[in-house]
Amino acid sequence: MEQRRNLAIGVDLGATSLYVSVVDVSSGERLGEAKAKSRAELGADAVVGRVVKAIKQALLAAGVTKQDVLGVGVGVPGPVLASQGLVLSLTNMGPTWNQYPLAARLSERLGLRVIVDNDVNVGAVGEHRFGAGRGTRDMIAMFVGTGLGGGLILNGALHTGFRGSAGEVGHMVLQADGALCGCGERGHAEAYASRSGIERAINEAIDAGESSIIPQLMKEQGRKNLTSAVLDRAYQQGDAVTVHAIDEAQRYLGLLIASCVNVLDPEAVVVGGGVVERMGEGYLGRVREVAYQHFLNKNESESIRIVAAELGDASGSVGAAVLAAQRLSQM
Amino acid sequence: MEQRRNLAIGVDLGATSLYVSVVDVSSGERLGEAKAKSRAELGADAVVGRVVKAIKQALLAAGVTKQDVLGVGVGVPGPVLASQGLVLSLTNMGPTWNQYPLAARLSERLGLRVIVDNDVNVGAVGEHRFGAGRGTRDMIAMFVGTGLGGGLILNGALHTGFRGSAGEVGHMVLQADGALCGCGERGHAEAYASRSGIERAINEAIDAGESSIIPQLMKEQGRKNLTSAVLDRAYQQGDAVTVHAIDEAQRYLGLLIASCVNVLDPEAVVVGGGVVERMGEGYLGRVREVAYQHFLNKNESESIRIVAAELGDASGSVGAAVLAAQRLSQM
Repeated sequence: MEQRRNLAIGVDLGATSLYVSVVDVSSGERLGEAKAKSRAELGADAVVGRVVKAIKQALLAAGVTKQDVLGVGVGVPGPVLASQGLVLSLTNMGPTWNQYPLAARLSERLGLRVIVDNDVNVGAVGEHRFGAGRGTRDMIAMFVGTGLGGGLILNGALHTGFRGSAGEVGHMVLQADGALCGCGERGHAEAYASRSGIERAINEAIDAGESSIIPQLMKEQGRKNLTSAVLDRAYQQGDAVTVHAIDEAQRYLGLLIASCVNVLDPEAVVVGGGVVERMGEGYLGRVREVAYQHFLNKNESESIRIVAAELGDASGSVGAAVLAAQRLSQM
Repeated sequence: MEQRRNLAIGVDLGATSLYVSVVDVSSGERLGEAKAKSRAELGADAVVGRVVKAIKQALLAAGVTKQDVLGVGVGVPGPVLASQGLVLSLTNMGPTWNQYPLAARLSERLGLRVIVDNDVNVGAVGEHRFGAGRGTRDMIAMFVGTGLGGGLILNGALHTGFRGSAGEVGHMVLQADGALCGCGERGHAEAYASRSGIERAINEAIDAGESSIIPQLMKEQGRKNLTSAVLDRAYQQGDAVTVHAIDEAQRYLGLLIASCVNVLDPEAVVVGGGVVERMGEGYLGRVREVAYQHFLNKNESESIRIVAAELGDASGSVGAAVLAAQRLSQM
């Protein structure tokens, strides 16, 4: 008889799409997966229905039934009260998510136990257990996309903090009185080192009359917004405004990592998210250079690794599954 | 027969003076104390001799013998390799301290087991166990003096980090490309929020031709350096340059606390050190205002306490004793 495997379901619920993995939490193997559009405009209950459907597809793809899994972990793009399985708010997914009892609703529909945490926390757990941070005791994960989020692994476990708000590296101050952050305050890391920060810098330069091929590229592609494709093309063509904006984003990310290392002294900093994935490993060279320069403990600076995330899109769903297995086995 | 007490000796070794307490680590009671000049110019071995003498005085004052104590903890003003009881360097105390095996040397002389850590780490332990942070699970201590150091308590224990360098809050970046820090890099918290930062701001303002009573006060007191007494007097007399410099130091300390809270979400931030002690509780009002404004999680911002340290000069020696008892009981 085959040895019983430790299986859990992980869900990465985003504003536009959702991603389900059936994960062997002992090996990290993804036995089955399913992806779907989230259709946030339908409201929370309908989105839960879509998650249930995707979970059933993923179980089918994995060739297992819900009786074979320990439970479900869900990562969501916003703050949660993990102990209650409660989503506090998902700004990008509408007001039906305010104070939404996601764990309870999903559990009713599935007949499985469900835990909830935010997407960067579950991503950090995924990278720690099976990605670039495996084997470390203390690790910081940073995900650079439209925003800039992070998760902390301390003493081998996710550190969620007193109010469940730990890991918000995007709102560490790097430039007092500096650029306006999405949160309404000034000078935070997210206002410089995220995709929004890059766009802000480019728009400011163009508004100030600097010459750039960005407006022409946007017109050619019929875009009103600065898409990733436009940004990549401008960067590859050596557009000075774009190159400078990205260099600044890298520099601020390096300063952010240095701040985190000087206070936490982790074994590794794992950097993922859309911006880094698109630009590849090359993105981190400049980041490391700035970070190491600002480490207070320079003697052994080489021993703190600043590395690219390895699980890509799957870090969230894998991490959610791992976190579900951890938390549900403690209940 | 009296119940046997848990006693340990704590030593706070500073560049100018050393402070020994015999501490009941169950209650925090200090049974005996001794203070002496460090006489750093005599070299490490001679300073160790002075520590031994002060320890004997403190034991005598406490009415106990060395057989009654678990061991000795020493906090030093610089980096250590705690696992080896090794001082790496004490910049302010001369080159004889480079790679100095303090625990071994002191242990030989005393016939007691000795542990070593840096002064802010032991101060954090003291404030956590018996001071303003007692009862918290996660706490950050910051000590604002000539420099700006910190210590982290996570899950109830001192967090020293992968290389033993955790807690260096003074070298978190708050103003990219800003003022020069003592470490040689720019824009770090210490360059703004410490006593050196206040002095730098005042000197820059005076050099830029701003009117201040500081030069006159220094002349009256026959001082070439900006002493605490001069600073206090100028502040109390409403000297605009001084008031502004201190306001800026408070503001940057608030930003630093916000950065730490956003990443770590602790239960309390305990602020001590000479600058805060001299100015009293009033110093923290402005600090809290700025910090709370930059908390990402504002809803419950009141629940994270930003409080003044309670143990004053004794936080280091009490914390060193507590840490000695903890570590020696694990050996």
